[in-house]
Amino acid sequence: MGKKARTAITSTRDDDFAQWYQQVIKAADMAENSPVRGCMIIKPYGFSLWENMQRVFDDMIKEHGVQNAYFPLLIPLSFISREADHVEGFAKECAVVTHHRLEEQDGELVPAGKLEEPYVIRPTSETIIGDAMARWIQSYRDLPLKLNQWCNVMRWEMRTRMFLRTSEFLWQEGHNAFENAEDAREDSLKMLEAYRVFAEDYLALPVFTGEKTEDERFPGADATYTIEAIMQDGKALQAGTSHDLGQNFAKSIGIKFQNREGDEEYAHTTSWGISTRLIGGMIMAHGDDDGMIMPPRVAPQQIIILPVVKNIDEGGEVIEFAKKLVGELKKQGLRAHVDMRDMRTPDKMWDSIKKGVPLRVEIGNRELENGEVTFVRRDIGRDSKETISSDAFVDRAHSLIYEIHNFMLERAKTFRDDNTSEGSSVDDIDEFFKSGNIGLIKVPTTLLDDESLEKVMKEYSLSTRCMPFKDEGQKVLIGKAY
Amino acid sequence: MGKKARTAITSTRDDDFAQWYQQVIKAADMAENSPVRGCMIIKPYGFSLWENMQRVFDDMIKEHGVQNAYFPLLIPLSFISREADHVEGFAKECAVVTHHRLEEQDGELVPAGKLEEPYVIRPTSETIIGDAMARWIQSYRDLPLKLNQWCNVMRWEMRTRMFLRTSEFLWQEGHNAFENAEDAREDSLKMLEAYRVFAEDYLALPVFTGEKTEDERFPGADATYTIEAIMQDGKALQAGTSHDLGQNFAKSIGIKFQNREGDEEYAHTTSWGISTRLIGGMIMAHGDDDGMIMPPRVAPQQIIILPVVKNIDEGGEVIEFAKKLVGELKKQGLRAHVDMRDMRTPDKMWDSIKKGVPLRVEIGNRELENGEVTFVRRDIGRDSKETISSDAFVDRAHSLIYEIHNFMLERAKTFRDDNTSEGSSVDDIDEFFKSGNIGLIKVPTTLLDDESLEKVMKEYSLSTRCMPFKDEGQKVLIGKAY
Repeated sequence: MGKKARTAITSTRDDDFAQWYQQVIKAADMAENSPVRGCMIIKPYGFSLWENMQRVFDDMIKEHGVQNAYFPLLIPLSFISREADHVEGFAKECAVVTHHRLEEQDGELVPAGKLEEPYVIRPTSETIIGDAMARWIQSYRDLPLKLNQWCNVMRWEMRTRMFLRTSEFLWQEGHNAFENAEDAREDSLKMLEAYRVFAEDYLALPVFTGEKTEDERFPGADATYTIEAIMQDGKALQAGTSHDLGQNFAKSIGIKFQNREGDEEYAHTTSWGISTRLIGGMIMAHGDDDGMIMPPRVAPQQIIILPVVKNIDEGGEVIEFAKKLVGELKKQGLRAHVDMRDMRTPDKMWDSIKKGVPLRVEIGNRELENGEVTFVRRDIGRDSKETISSDAFVDRAHSLIYEIHNFMLERAKTFRDDNTSEGSSVDDIDEFFKSGNIGLIKVPTTLLDDESLEKVMKEYSLSTRCMPFKDEGQKVLIGKAY
Repeated sequence: MGKKARTAITSTRDDDFAQWYQQVIKAADMAENSPVRGCMIIKPYGFSLWENMQRVFDDMIKEHGVQNAYFPLLIPLSFISREADHVEGFAKECAVVTHHRLEEQDGELVPAGKLEEPYVIRPTSETIIGDAMARWIQSYRDLPLKLNQWCNVMRWEMRTRMFLRTSEFLWQEGHNAFENAEDAREDSLKMLEAYRVFAEDYLALPVFTGEKTEDERFPGADATYTIEAIMQDGKALQAGTSHDLGQNFAKSIGIKFQNREGDEEYAHTTSWGISTRLIGGMIMAHGDDDGMIMPPRVAPQQIIILPVVKNIDEGGEVIEFAKKLVGELKKQGLRAHVDMRDMRTPDKMWDSIKKGVPLRVEIGNRELENGEVTFVRRDIGRDSKETISSDAFVDRAHSLIYEIHNFMLERAKTFRDDNTSEGSSVDDIDEFFKSGNIGLIKVPTTLLDDESLEKVMKEYSLSTRCMPFKDEGQKVLIGKAY
């Protein structure tokens, strides 16, 4: 029985990255496709990851003065059509509610009770939240107003892929309003910075920060800022965006206020969102040919303890030892767990590997006798195997989590840097992809006006990813993307 | 200027309870009606309450071994029609998605891209979660399986009222599966007990626990258990339900497993839910003619501190004193807040009253000089006013919260008991409501077979609320209800 059979992941990243991705999700029991076209079921293990992500990021935005609220799922057609670019961007792929009951006809259920005005299931909520802002904001004293909701949204995607692109997905959408253009711009950059911190410091996902080129902007925005991550197949993943909407939505929706001079003017708004797509990003940035590797700060389980006994019901002292250890780790605020399932130890071991639990601890009779534990880091694998006293392990657990996080972040950074090139001409881009390179290429933004660029972009299915802040708008990253 | 003008609540509970209810919600800034028919916007103050409720109850169900997950918003028509009673119960009021894009025709947006099979926005998820269970459950080893999701659901209600009955609402829906009928029944009772504990120990909402009569059962259930609260107008509010679904859904959906004897059989399932409706219940059980009274354990703010100064920007030492106090209270895990808004102190005071903040603390120059604070309990009002040293207040804060909770729970219990009568005949019921009594009347369940009952029930718009456990199925509570 080869390693592949044991892991249930028969594809490797090199062989077939797309297939490998699906298999990792299945082997880690994170999600599955549902009977509803393009919609997925997020299974408990995957959802627990999302809950941890939510908790961390929710605390971050509350520190920033953002308040959570909840707005209707349905958006009247008249609302969605208020902003011209916006409707253009979303009309082609939205779920439309047209009836409000079902009736039996010839033994079959059919829609009945036709609505006078149909509704769209929110693809995003600028228009409906903007409508509320127009009522709530009267004076500059009501500003800034910073609102967020954690919710489901729907875009009728034709080609879907779990976590990355599904018809329904979960996200947070923030919607802020300000007195002037400077405050709005500054805030949209601040929220992008929050995304960068979240991605790097919690998900171990290094990102480029920058502005989108005009053609990649959010429909209706003056500027879209983005964090872009790179996956192990060299494709970019847009991992979070923050939009400076200027006065576009305020004007079309009527978000007016009396300013400090007593004059009426339109507010300046922003919107910003991250979604369950980030989970896809973590899988593709961190996973290996054995399965998922969870970034430890948001991992559903940070430490799994395997009692190495013939029969879990007769484990006696080994089990007691394991439970005592878990208690001590939990006291330190760590998510630790004893695997008490009635399964063979090697199967449990492979299960924890496929699920990507950052630290696996094995306790058998020898460990029990010596008051020791044997542990293995998932990010490094068996080379990291160490046997130390259980007290020492408890003392070191937090710093191990810290080390794993840093190692994963650095490994991903190295991969990103190794796969980001620089070029200065359209030929350089052509040459780069023609030679079979994966990754991104950074070129001067002046090339965006070069007429020969389009052909090359089409040939290799490229898109501009962002104009990185650190290059001060002088350069643009180009590559394939999810 | 009379008190009413100051509070912005012009109706009293006695005058016009329904009007009072709407005004309390508005004055507390908890929610408002949206432009989407029957749907509300939950504003930050109301949503913060819901977040606190979620956190508490989520911890409770996780202790119980329940795992959170996420299932699709849309349900195929073929799914919803699988269980006959179920479709009967929900077909009349559901939002139907029939198209997947919008097209411009004669300058107007119209639905386009007709779906082959329409979808219903979930009114509840038994069928779609059951479908997943049918795939996930193979053997008795996979049982029990306990799943929950926090999500939005939709029922096309014709007459809506904020929090109590809206077309879209937020809830948790738990779906558990078991090996046998006993385990399922026991679990559905356990979840009901969790609801009772949550309602009484956190929301200060005393409830009757019992079983629903057959005609009030959840569509497709063998038994529905309920917690029923009483509002200050004497009407009952169904505050949470737990259903023993027997093998009904398992049979119609195909949730089969290999039992310990190696035979194939159908699982026994339960479902259980509470929603944002509970917020309506808290308003109507606790509020007074000055506005909301928040149960302190889930209150968005537990303690509000008002610096009594002419000008907040020049508050100097008073502000410092207030901020130091808030820091100490927060260290104790209390949700405390200094009201730094540029408003008159009396306006701030009335604002905190309308919002129902459990403890209001006032700090002025005299308090500053003496190192004291003056505080008022919202549940009792100005009679509870006390001035004590700020150190003593910090020491007492937790027990004050405890006392306020108990006082509110006892007050609501007294009201409930004062408004629950006993009767033994249909005439007793008739007499009770004819005399203009509000509240519930408890009668022997044998009356349910009395043919004259229906007329009386219709005349006063009564319904059976539950057969309380403590009367061992011998009695039934009858009353008006939301």
